[in-house]
Amino acid sequence: MSGDLPPAELIRGCVLAVHKFKTNVVIIGDEALVQNELKKHTFRDEQIHVIPATEIIGMDEAPATACRQKKDASVMVGCRALREGLIDGFMSPGNTGATLTAALMEVGRIKGVKRPALSITVATPQGKVMMLDIGANADCIPLYLRQFAILGATYVKHVYGVANPRIGLLNIGEEEGKGNELAQASFHEMSKQPFPFIGNIEPNYLFEHRCDVIVGDGFSGNLVIKSAEGMAKMIVTIIKERVKKSLKNKVGALLMQEVFVAMKQNTNPNQYGAAPLLGIHKPVYVGHGSSNADAIVSSVGACLRGLQAQVTEHMTEAIAKYG
Amino acid sequence: MSGDLPPAELIRGCVLAVHKFKTNVVIIGDEALVQNELKKHTFRDEQIHVIPATEIIGMDEAPATACRQKKDASVMVGCRALREGLIDGFMSPGNTGATLTAALMEVGRIKGVKRPALSITVATPQGKVMMLDIGANADCIPLYLRQFAILGATYVKHVYGVANPRIGLLNIGEEEGKGNELAQASFHEMSKQPFPFIGNIEPNYLFEHRCDVIVGDGFSGNLVIKSAEGMAKMIVTIIKERVKKSLKNKVGALLMQEVFVAMKQNTNPNQYGAAPLLGIHKPVYVGHGSSNADAIVSSVGACLRGLQAQVTEHMTEAIAKYG
Repeated sequence: MSGDLPPAELIRGCVLAVHKFKTNVVIIGDEALVQNELKKHTFRDEQIHVIPATEIIGMDEAPATACRQKKDASVMVGCRALREGLIDGFMSPGNTGATLTAALMEVGRIKGVKRPALSITVATPQGKVMMLDIGANADCIPLYLRQFAILGATYVKHVYGVANPRIGLLNIGEEEGKGNELAQASFHEMSKQPFPFIGNIEPNYLFEHRCDVIVGDGFSGNLVIKSAEGMAKMIVTIIKERVKKSLKNKVGALLMQEVFVAMKQNTNPNQYGAAPLLGIHKPVYVGHGSSNADAIVSSVGACLRGLQAQVTEHMTEAIAKYG
Repeated sequence: MSGDLPPAELIRGCVLAVHKFKTNVVIIGDEALVQNELKKHTFRDEQIHVIPATEIIGMDEAPATACRQKKDASVMVGCRALREGLIDGFMSPGNTGATLTAALMEVGRIKGVKRPALSITVATPQGKVMMLDIGANADCIPLYLRQFAILGATYVKHVYGVANPRIGLLNIGEEEGKGNELAQASFHEMSKQPFPFIGNIEPNYLFEHRCDVIVGDGFSGNLVIKSAEGMAKMIVTIIKERVKKSLKNKVGALLMQEVFVAMKQNTNPNQYGAAPLLGIHKPVYVGHGSSNADAIVSSVGACLRGLQAQVTEHMTEAIAKYG
């Protein structure tokens, strides 16, 4: 029910996903609205179910308060359905903090996990790089970062099929001893987890596949993502404004259209659909607020891949052993 | 003597600066090498002086150790010349940490300044934004950030001519109460400085001129700069690789050349020459390692503007009053 786009767009995505993956989808929200919207689409009755939820947590609401007060919000109902086994995975394109809070309240953490983390997977020309935490935990201790490494690498190994994922530590210098107190202490903590540790990684190398998983505190990770987004946006603005001003540039841009499409795809945070919330003991995915129907389809795909790979079970084992 | 490019390129920049600004320049380094290089250029004898320095601190040397051991390194000699009044301002395109250390050891801080900060000025389509600290202080307390605000705003006011510079606090959310412990505590600290505080600023808005000065700890600031740089580099890579592959794209790129030049200029960290090291009690500027002759010219210009505006004196007063 939440997110930046209207429910109709999200529902259209669910219908597309049902056909693409031959799977069933459960939609949680305003029953009348959802049923009415579903009438416009073709699918078999057993493929789409609706679980009613009478409340909505808006994009700007304070997560903790909203989740306590709105027990019948779609995100709360969804997480309860997940806990009770009515659904196998849950995804929301709504308020990220509310999804995190609802997942913690209604589903709970994997045993031993101190703090679940939000992840993002970035497409580099050489391959995928997962970064976590990107905003769930603004203040961290080295142990959290060690767990992020274990959770992220286990996900990348089983879902992306990377045999031996390499871990990098988000930092502002390459050598050991660089960075703030947390980064320095976390450097040593990384030797306590079982995946190969390549050392510090500076964010100017984020888009070069130097490692498979980058770990850092959620404040830093969030800054990195938003800075990259800001730069991409500025470049697009500069190109658009210049192109508008001259016919020569317009013709050039038309000829180069394919290049700009590739650029947009590669800098699009929606490209892999929703990102897994790692450390929750059932699959919860957080979508971008601007998720459209295509993003919903990708999200259902990501969720299915995670389920088929039994990644939550693998993460539970890894944390029990090394967490 | 340091930096990524050979001394010949930097010396060429000095000669260009002498002609452009009708000012004198003092070059510090290997006397024989510098004099030999200067023979290739035309200028009046009194315009360029050389102060000999027999040692060099390389780009990868640990700053503290190198500055202690190499008392005759060009950066150390330069900072001593500044202290002794032989020169009015000092700029180095070499090892940033060494410049910071040498400035602290040989020149010293403005009275009352706890930590000098490295700044960067970003060109947005709407105007200049200064961000600090971008790497001198990985761990900060709110008081440092308050001082960064005072130093940055005073610089922007007197050198860039912004009448009433607005301060923003680097953070991962807009509302008060967002962010890590430092950001939350610094939000309140900002009321203790005299410039208008617009609140938190997320780095996706870095390039939108929502304020004139953005303050944050040096770890965060450095991550932001390097993330933006990484994204810009990836976009350029994508464009170049696609263009290579098709004649149609090549023709398009040729027609759009002016657009790409503008894009390069706007994302070029060298565009304003060296960045001031704020909080040192005489003018010290830090250049990008890749500074070329043009960057040296811009740096001399930046230094002259700072001197003409008596910005160090203004910062000393502002810190005495509000620091």
